[in-house]
Amino acid sequence: MTVPTFDDVLAAAGRISGVAHRTPVLRSRIVDDLVGARVFFKCENFQRAGVFKFRGAYNALVQLPQEQRRAGVVTSSSGNHAQALSLAARLLGIPATIVMPLDAPAVKVAATAGYGGDIVRYDRYAQDYAEIAHGLVAERGLTVIPPVEHPHVVAGQGTAAMELFEEVGELDALFVPVGGGGLFSGSVLSARAMAPDCRLHGVEPEAGDDGQRSLREGRRVTIDTPQTIADGAQTRFLDPLPFEILLRARPTMLTVTDDELVECMRLFAGYLKIVVEPTGCLGFAAVRRAADELRGQRVGVIISGGNVDLDRFAALVGT
Amino acid sequence: MTVPTFDDVLAAAGRISGVAHRTPVLRSRIVDDLVGARVFFKCENFQRAGVFKFRGAYNALVQLPQEQRRAGVVTSSSGNHAQALSLAARLLGIPATIVMPLDAPAVKVAATAGYGGDIVRYDRYAQDYAEIAHGLVAERGLTVIPPVEHPHVVAGQGTAAMELFEEVGELDALFVPVGGGGLFSGSVLSARAMAPDCRLHGVEPEAGDDGQRSLREGRRVTIDTPQTIADGAQTRFLDPLPFEILLRARPTMLTVTDDELVECMRLFAGYLKIVVEPTGCLGFAAVRRAADELRGQRVGVIISGGNVDLDRFAALVGT
Repeated sequence: MTVPTFDDVLAAAGRISGVAHRTPVLRSRIVDDLVGARVFFKCENFQRAGVFKFRGAYNALVQLPQEQRRAGVVTSSSGNHAQALSLAARLLGIPATIVMPLDAPAVKVAATAGYGGDIVRYDRYAQDYAEIAHGLVAERGLTVIPPVEHPHVVAGQGTAAMELFEEVGELDALFVPVGGGGLFSGSVLSARAMAPDCRLHGVEPEAGDDGQRSLREGRRVTIDTPQTIADGAQTRFLDPLPFEILLRARPTMLTVTDDELVECMRLFAGYLKIVVEPTGCLGFAAVRRAADELRGQRVGVIISGGNVDLDRFAALVGT
Repeated sequence: MTVPTFDDVLAAAGRISGVAHRTPVLRSRIVDDLVGARVFFKCENFQRAGVFKFRGAYNALVQLPQEQRRAGVVTSSSGNHAQALSLAARLLGIPATIVMPLDAPAVKVAATAGYGGDIVRYDRYAQDYAEIAHGLVAERGLTVIPPVEHPHVVAGQGTAAMELFEEVGELDALFVPVGGGGLFSGSVLSARAMAPDCRLHGVEPEAGDDGQRSLREGRRVTIDTPQTIADGAQTRFLDPLPFEILLRARPTMLTVTDDELVECMRLFAGYLKIVVEPTGCLGFAAVRRAADELRGQRVGVIISGGNVDLDRFAALVGT
């Protein structure tokens, strides 16, 4: 698999222009005072389908040749990638099949269906996802668009950080949520080209420190599915492609607790007036922990998404 | 009192440039589908101090001569104007005194103090506010900066609609919350100059239809303090200056219920991922009611602010 470069990010930016939202960068004087630094929040919770993943999904789909477009695409996801891919496919007139476990939350199944995805359910205790997907690929000639492990997906995700640097100039440090590593590795491509002195920090939930351990040990460490409210980072390992990019760039990997994520959800709602899903709080939670070292600096934070059930959100931010 | 014109709005835009936030305009495909129109949300909940009122407050303060600046300013408000004025005064090094009733919510007193305002408490059952303010004006030579009834305040508020038209071009209709009328009358100045064919709709809570009645009857109607969750629109009358502007422009005045405001808070949190205070939902609630007449049109909505207590917010949007 080809490792993408910043040129691929630039090309992706051209392809998604006018289709993906160019999301705003928000600031808050109160937050700056709290942290003691100047913090720039790139708000991908305002991205289409509520999450950065639309960037990568669209960039991958739009490059498919006609024949593959006609046959359609398939992916497995019970979360954000499913919604983003469904929406991107609909905009391009490509049939999208999403393989979802029978016990996926009804609200996510409904959202994915609402975006136009054709849903195939399976019993994850009795059936193997890979077998089902391979069956669909063989029978119907579908193309698999994975949530992370694809150079066009990673390049697309890099456009969020690219827009941030375009808008605010160089930064002393950048903090990015890490699940499978697509958003962070894409961000690294943009940062290395546009702000070579910017320190790069990937942030994981404490329970899911596979990325931190992988970079420390120089090999992809696999863990059990972590117990954390950051459902977008409940990944068991870094995907190979992001790992390759991160291994070269040698960023710092940090972790934060679920309690810190909830506190950030409250700060976001109270001071920035935005709804952020737990995974989207990873970057800011790490900034708060590292405040002493960031004093007076210009700090970028990527808020990855805002897809959180309203009742759950209310329960977490209320007291 | 001089009635401001669009030239005053333009001048205000120059004065607040780089100090007030140029707030983003957000869109949502799901919301567009729900309404059947293309809706552009001007997000003043992201304005400094969480509300559009910073625009007018700063525009008024920055035009004060040195002598008045040194002596300081005074206003009475337990709400958004107090916070906005305190912040604007602090940025300009002007002492600001805010007269607040003893039973004002502790959280608002704390927020106003946090923005640097000097708070004078009074017993509103035993003391008269006007007497206290006049006393401060007489004793200390303070200048009164009212929340609405001031040409520089109204001109400043008009910059929000001005930025909206600059960014999205002409609109078929514009929906704006109405309390004392400062935001709406300022918006009318911008709309009449920048989008002469745009239909103008001021929106009040059903319980507080003083504006609607005033324009219908051609005189300023005063009502009892209305019972509504839209605390920014719990006004008893339109102020004279906005009334003058609105009487000339003859916009449509609409009302919505508290239940409709709560439903909009949910839609904003769920689909736009933003926290909006009840008053800030007035415009969108009216758009939903008028959806049949807006089909296929380009519609602007000003979201006035996002200052709502988090617990209250959680209680309203959760189920």
